[in-house]
Amino acid sequence: MKDMSDFETLEVGYDVPALPGMEEAEIQTPCLVLDLDALERNVKKMGDYAKAHGMRHRVHGKMHKSVDVAKLQVELGGACGVCCQKVSEAEVFARGGIKDVLVSNQVRDPAKIDRLARMPKLGARTICCVDDVANVADLSAAAEKHDTEIECLVEIDCGAGRCGVTDTPSVVEIARAIDQAPGLKFAGLQAYQGAMQHLDSYEERKAKIDVAVAQVSQAVEALKAVDLECDIVGGGGTGSYYFESNSVVYNELQCGSYAFMDADYGRILDENGQRIDQGEWKNALFILTSVMSHAKADKAIVDAGLKAQSVDSGLPVIFGRTDVEYVKCSDEHGVVADPDGVLKVNDKLKLVPGHCDPTCNVHDWYVGLRGGKVEALWPVSARGKAY
Amino acid sequence: MKDMSDFETLEVGYDVPALPGMEEAEIQTPCLVLDLDALERNVKKMGDYAKAHGMRHRVHGKMHKSVDVAKLQVELGGACGVCCQKVSEAEVFARGGIKDVLVSNQVRDPAKIDRLARMPKLGARTICCVDDVANVADLSAAAEKHDTEIECLVEIDCGAGRCGVTDTPSVVEIARAIDQAPGLKFAGLQAYQGAMQHLDSYEERKAKIDVAVAQVSQAVEALKAVDLECDIVGGGGTGSYYFESNSVVYNELQCGSYAFMDADYGRILDENGQRIDQGEWKNALFILTSVMSHAKADKAIVDAGLKAQSVDSGLPVIFGRTDVEYVKCSDEHGVVADPDGVLKVNDKLKLVPGHCDPTCNVHDWYVGLRGGKVEALWPVSARGKAY
Repeated sequence: MKDMSDFETLEVGYDVPALPGMEEAEIQTPCLVLDLDALERNVKKMGDYAKAHGMRHRVHGKMHKSVDVAKLQVELGGACGVCCQKVSEAEVFARGGIKDVLVSNQVRDPAKIDRLARMPKLGARTICCVDDVANVADLSAAAEKHDTEIECLVEIDCGAGRCGVTDTPSVVEIARAIDQAPGLKFAGLQAYQGAMQHLDSYEERKAKIDVAVAQVSQAVEALKAVDLECDIVGGGGTGSYYFESNSVVYNELQCGSYAFMDADYGRILDENGQRIDQGEWKNALFILTSVMSHAKADKAIVDAGLKAQSVDSGLPVIFGRTDVEYVKCSDEHGVVADPDGVLKVNDKLKLVPGHCDPTCNVHDWYVGLRGGKVEALWPVSARGKAY
Repeated sequence: MKDMSDFETLEVGYDVPALPGMEEAEIQTPCLVLDLDALERNVKKMGDYAKAHGMRHRVHGKMHKSVDVAKLQVELGGACGVCCQKVSEAEVFARGGIKDVLVSNQVRDPAKIDRLARMPKLGARTICCVDDVANVADLSAAAEKHDTEIECLVEIDCGAGRCGVTDTPSVVEIARAIDQAPGLKFAGLQAYQGAMQHLDSYEERKAKIDVAVAQVSQAVEALKAVDLECDIVGGGGTGSYYFESNSVVYNELQCGSYAFMDADYGRILDENGQRIDQGEWKNALFILTSVMSHAKADKAIVDAGLKAQSVDSGLPVIFGRTDVEYVKCSDEHGVVADPDGVLKVNDKLKLVPGHCDPTCNVHDWYVGLRGGKVEALWPVSARGKAY
């Protein structure tokens, strides 16, 4: 990945959308832009919250895939490290200087297990999840082979319906196997309830986490009964972190989207019935797009389509505008309804993406803005690291 | 972009999913794999069809974004060149040795116009589309500045509802302006009906193209009346190319998806009511994915989610299997219903993506397979070239 020292070799409009020092108006679209003031405010706010509630915050790096953003979250937000979903992604963070990296996912392929076992040599505490006792021997053999230590969390499925075991005896069985395996260290529990994060209602979200907390508490007690302590009880996202923070049993948060926000998350409601993008968090991430055709009076065509974003969670929303609306998305085009014909060719719009994570994953760069100028150009360091 | 000479520096599982010579079983997932026999068969079949019908075939490079695939289409499929949607993408093809490149889109931003005007110096015939007479002076000034020639097609909106003019007087007005502008050459018409390509019914698709052909024929006649000949009358996609080929007025096809196929296109029906992926075209593109968790008896979790594909046109279909079904997609996970519990951890599945174009755009590499071995590793050369 190219770094600041390579900047002089980068062609604006081919390799990169902009360079530091440029005016906002000169940025080549479509691209991702970050409002650095909003980003820093979000990062500091969540860091302060976690500290005030005695929680560690292991920020979710899968959302932004950026070493620069992760470092900001560590330095300004007091994060203990990152979690992410893939071994290749974890390696990017470890190589980039993040010292505590959890692959909050299963690692089963032999080659991936081997890479994971080598990761502590990059200088990072290395943690992964386990939901099958059959995985323990493979992880152990690889750690022994490389003379390293892999810490393991048992993953509990507390409602997401993906990986993870659902019953306490299975948690205890896997934890004991980890504890007894050379090269491995039992480190606790992974219990992220992903399925509830996007429910609009605060009360509905709370009810789902109440169930998860009961399930996790039972597991922690059962582990204590066999003399296994949980250093980490991790979970919590942007739609639930206050529930886990007040649960007593959880001690690590894993929030991701709070830092950037997106249109789908923004719609969920806080305790007072207010959208979370209207006070709790600020939109910091936008797709900058330009009008490239206005051949029909009532619609403008913009240059950000499916290759500039993921629409799995709905279309993007045009930031700060109620007079125009993004109504259709094809590969390289967006159709913007412009009933009053207010837009002109080359006008720029800021889109709040429907879903930040897979949208960031199609871009190579974040263009950091402050005061109308490009202040930073950060690579999406782990983009494409899907293995 | 790294080429074959860099292979020794590439780490499998970090930089690349595989290297040539590896067994299929060793490939790191998730990644894109190409069945090279099926790809070559599709490419040759469409090339033979175009030749037999006296049509040029300007293959759509926006689908695969690969110089290697484009070269195969030129060499084996007799393609005259490529079209694509972005200037930065066009530059990749021109730098890669494709000699005839159409940006089948509007180019309005001053910096992009400047880049386009420099493209002929890369050795490629350079063509773009125009749907606004106000664009002509800008294109002309840039071509004059760089002492190059940009060829221009007037874009007709024949039903897609995006860019393009809809009435013949506007076509003639823009064409005359191009013809009179220094540095520009009027080259014909762009008339791609994108909106109908995915209608299941052959008859419904035919009816839409009948309308487009009437509209285009009227424009060609009106241009002839002012002594403007169309070197190119381009359009046609995988769901319509036989209509344009038999229209007399079109002379260039712009098919893309036929080469790879996908699940959404595969469902449309040919003249005999047969799905086009059941004879007309073969599935050549797959997302290779692995089972990474099977903690519940009736569902397997695979490692290809939203960061390995776009689900804008529906979920992927598991190739060659009726006993298991991909039923849910989240950022890094897919849920596969496995009612009989036939799958095991580390089993590999081939997914036919819902929509090939934006799926290819999230990957860095195509792994070319033949006879169970990795034969080729091709970069997705223009991935991320969205500007």
